[in-house]
Amino acid sequence: MAAGKSRTKKGGEDLKPQIRIMFRKAIAMGPGKADLLEAIAGTGSISAAARKLGMSYRRAWLLVDTMNQCFDNPLVETATGGSHGGGARVTELGLEVIRRYRDMDLKATAAVSRELSEFARLMAKSPAHQPGR
Amino acid sequence: MAAGKSRTKKGGEDLKPQIRIMFRKAIAMGPGKADLLEAIAGTGSISAAARKLGMSYRRAWLLVDTMNQCFDNPLVETATGGSHGGGARVTELGLEVIRRYRDMDLKATAAVSRELSEFARLMAKSPAHQPGR
Repeated sequence: MAAGKSRTKKGGEDLKPQIRIMFRKAIAMGPGKADLLEAIAGTGSISAAARKLGMSYRRAWLLVDTMNQCFDNPLVETATGGSHGGGARVTELGLEVIRRYRDMDLKATAAVSRELSEFARLMAKSPAHQPGR
Repeated sequence: MAAGKSRTKKGGEDLKPQIRIMFRKAIAMGPGKADLLEAIAGTGSISAAARKLGMSYRRAWLLVDTMNQCFDNPLVETATGGSHGGGARVTELGLEVIRRYRDMDLKATAAVSRELSEFARLMAKSPAHQPGR
């Protein structure tokens, strides 16, 4: 019964808080967008980043578009080589946003660590459960 | 140019952190599920709660099913009157989960309030922007 990468003995190993930053009606930044930004920074391409994260190019492009609209300046700039081929780079602002988001995520997680371990007692015990969304 | 219910003068009025509690691969609790639980508690019915929140019955049912699978005991119990008609009630555990989630949300938000106001400076200035997801 391999429990995967369990980090603690009790039910808490599977519990993880995530923070999203909502801007008006949109998710300006969250775990998925932060991962995507990092993957674009690493690969220099939206399509390579999408492949790396197992998402469609279209979805990655939409996430980038939302981010770029939420912020005062673009987080990702695409080169003029066409939609798929031209390459993309994360701007200075984009790198700053990743840093600030990761910092907020850590602080928020730390702030609820005690509550989270109490919450863990309430969770399903059986690893057989594999709930969907 | 009515800016809606703006709470502060600067860009921060539109910024709001949200916390989700991930359990394995599922969202055990988040803003949407907490609102749904409260609406079920208030209406005594999944379908009435879904209508109140403007979501489909099917979506509400799936969210309830995910919550019930994530926790050790059900958060919502449905009466035996059929899928739509029988009524539903939020269990004691469900009410406890709502309280704990709202408490975590407040603590996490408070923990990042300074970071959030710095983040606000980076956001789009024009209210004309209406980014999607």
